[in-house]
Amino acid sequence: MNPTACLIVIGNEVLSGRTQDANTIYLAKRLGEIGMPLREVRVIPDIAETIISTINEVRARFSHVFTTGGIGPTHDDITSECIAAAFGVPWEKQPVVWARMEAFYPAGGFNAARQRMATMPRGAVLIDNGHIAPGFSIGNVHVMAGVPSIMRAMFEALVPSLPTGDPVISRSLHAVGIREGDIAAGLTDIQLRYADLDIGSYPYFREPGAGVAIVAKGTDPVAAEAAIAEVATLFRSLGTEPVPGEPG
Amino acid sequence: MNPTACLIVIGNEVLSGRTQDANTIYLAKRLGEIGMPLREVRVIPDIAETIISTINEVRARFSHVFTTGGIGPTHDDITSECIAAAFGVPWEKQPVVWARMEAFYPAGGFNAARQRMATMPRGAVLIDNGHIAPGFSIGNVHVMAGVPSIMRAMFEALVPSLPTGDPVISRSLHAVGIREGDIAAGLTDIQLRYADLDIGSYPYFREPGAGVAIVAKGTDPVAAEAAIAEVATLFRSLGTEPVPGEPG
Repeated sequence: MNPTACLIVIGNEVLSGRTQDANTIYLAKRLGEIGMPLREVRVIPDIAETIISTINEVRARFSHVFTTGGIGPTHDDITSECIAAAFGVPWEKQPVVWARMEAFYPAGGFNAARQRMATMPRGAVLIDNGHIAPGFSIGNVHVMAGVPSIMRAMFEALVPSLPTGDPVISRSLHAVGIREGDIAAGLTDIQLRYADLDIGSYPYFREPGAGVAIVAKGTDPVAAEAAIAEVATLFRSLGTEPVPGEPG
Repeated sequence: MNPTACLIVIGNEVLSGRTQDANTIYLAKRLGEIGMPLREVRVIPDIAETIISTINEVRARFSHVFTTGGIGPTHDDITSECIAAAFGVPWEKQPVVWARMEAFYPAGGFNAARQRMATMPRGAVLIDNGHIAPGFSIGNVHVMAGVPSIMRAMFEALVPSLPTGDPVISRSLHAVGIREGDIAAGLTDIQLRYADLDIGSYPYFREPGAGVAIVAKGTDPVAAEAAIAEVATLFRSLGTEPVPGEPG
């Protein structure tokens, strides 16, 4: 049984439409590759009580929880102290990070705001990735930056310490001219016979024509290929030759 | 007090990393414009018990809930029957949609799969937008398609029937060379004096240099402008002339 993952995107900027979240798609793909499929994403605001209650709910429900955002030095960066509150542990000076940041900044530069970035929940394990201020893990919760390039470096630094499962793979095909309503019954039949796969049907609308892509995902490549071969037969029964893969 | 909104994105394709969600940013902006700010987003899989429990949790917590995805004709489209289950009402033939779809398709085309799209929770109000198969509202839950172009048409058809509040506006400035840690204390002070605004600080990293953008959001344009004027003074106190707006 693969471990499961949940992502909590913390920050008003996604909820206000200022920022297009780019972390979900990256983590979704990478977590699938390491066999810890992403099962839920929540985007929540910079409100302490929301962060604390959300973390406590999801860390009980999923094998691992990843958070992005809210670990910088400004007033809206409250993730770290909220994680401490969620775990009921003190939020205190992290000596390794404190010493590193103190040495890094010129005199006076390691001010109260930056000292907050060197303050972590007691028991936090650093996610060290070459940045001056690291992320951290506590229990099954992994706290990362929101800036995509930094988040990615942190996640990749974290991967070797994560449990893994069977990689989630996918096989797909598509064809212009197919309509979902004409294949739905046949597709249901295939899904029922390949119960361990997730078979998804995705209509598309574009030049030179509308069509449908079918994607079979799971941890068994042989089953995924067999299911897609049956979908190909279904498409051909409607007089349409499918194209391997997804529409480019 | 503005009404609040929650978005539930239903579909394995976002969680697997196949699809970059495009509906959140559109709805976040539009909901801000009509004064019903988006307060939470959840991305959940096509699993009935997850959909039902999520809908029942969030419809009690937010003024309005919007869902995208899972209303097509295939086996993975289970949103509509799950909404009926969440409200504890029958999922039954919707006579207007049924008659329209029956007339639209050639003989035999209105098959069992498409009949599911004409089946809705008892009491559902159609979100009619020119598509053959509409979305629907029940209580404070609004059920829309996942395909972005169709979702947008449904949302815009829905807007006139939604309550509205004071539009959320934003004012912003930015400057290359400013570091968050150097303005954090001054920014906290400004946030405390403009408690009704959300003041966000967003570092950026790119050519020709790294910098910070500050965004003040709220329903009072005068307050937002005054706050941003104070941020400009803060930037100048560090010897940096800010640029109005966000980095392009």
